Amino acid sequence: MVGGTFDPLHDGHKRLLDRSFEIAGSDGQVIIGLTTDAFVSRKTHPVCPFSARQADLERYLVSRQYSTRWVIEPLNDRFGSAIDADFDAIIVSEETLPVAVEINKLRRNAGRKKVDIHQISCVLAEDGRWISSTRIYRGEIDIHGHVLP
Amino acid sequence: MVGGTFDPLHDGHKRLLDRSFEIAGSDGQVIIGLTTDAFVSRKTHPVCPFSARQADLERYLVSRQYSTRWVIEPLNDRFGSAIDADFDAIIVSEETLPVAVEINKLRRNAGRKKVDIHQISCVLAEDGRWISSTRIYRGEIDIHGHVLP
Repeated sequence: MVGGTFDPLHDGHKRLLDRSFEIAGSDGQVIIGLTTDAFVSRKTHPVCPFSARQADLERYLVSRQYSTRWVIEPLNDRFGSAIDADFDAIIVSEETLPVAVEINKLRRNAGRKKVDIHQISCVLAEDGRWISSTRIYRGEIDIHGHVLP
Repeated sequence: MVGGTFDPLHDGHKRLLDRSFEIAGSDGQVIIGLTTDAFVSRKTHPVCPFSARQADLERYLVSRQYSTRWVIEPLNDRFGSAIDADFDAIIVSEETLPVAVEINKLRRNAGRKKVDIHQISCVLAEDGRWISSTRIYRGEIDIHGHVLP
């Protein structure tokens, strides 16, 4: 399981997704939680509608020609189905490691097995700081981390 | 990179090692840090000598017939070569996640790239608690997590 808003889909997201597919393996399945418009309305900057973000995400996933199965699920809160579902691993970025640790605590409290947690390092922009949607929105960098004039 | 005392080598260790090899992939390399006798002298129970633990570990790794290369390095402290070496990912158990987070902070301070962190869930014994060397030493469970009379 992996989740995000993916707006715009930048090189950090692509690394997170690519590693998720590697970890799932060709026999596995990747469940991608995509934040709903209601959930992301808390963000500090405007976000594209769910349908547009889903289309971008699907276009990227299809282009990668993964042999692993995948499915996109709407994410209405930080956890989605991660507390109750039967799955093996959760993939997070550096920012969201605490959410994964919390998910395992809640799973344990609910009598479910803990899942492996994979924290994928963020991709750095040219200036040595993280690529992030907020920085792209502000016009500091592009989706590949190039610094904009 | 993965590390431990591996004494005795139990099913939790085996899961940690197996997942490390899966994550490294057949083109990769797994560096296994094995705690030195001086370092483990801080443990609350006696530990087999380094040479015996190394021999057990090597026997297990050879039996698995991994195609991935591997090397055992002595671990004199919690970090070993993890601060300075050029590598991609660190594999930890639930107990040692904070060490991995600290390693990334120290790497960042030293101007090195952060590494991915993979936290592999502990294997549960029959009684639903973790398999651990301490519990095996106490005679509560065997290396496969069976509860002993």
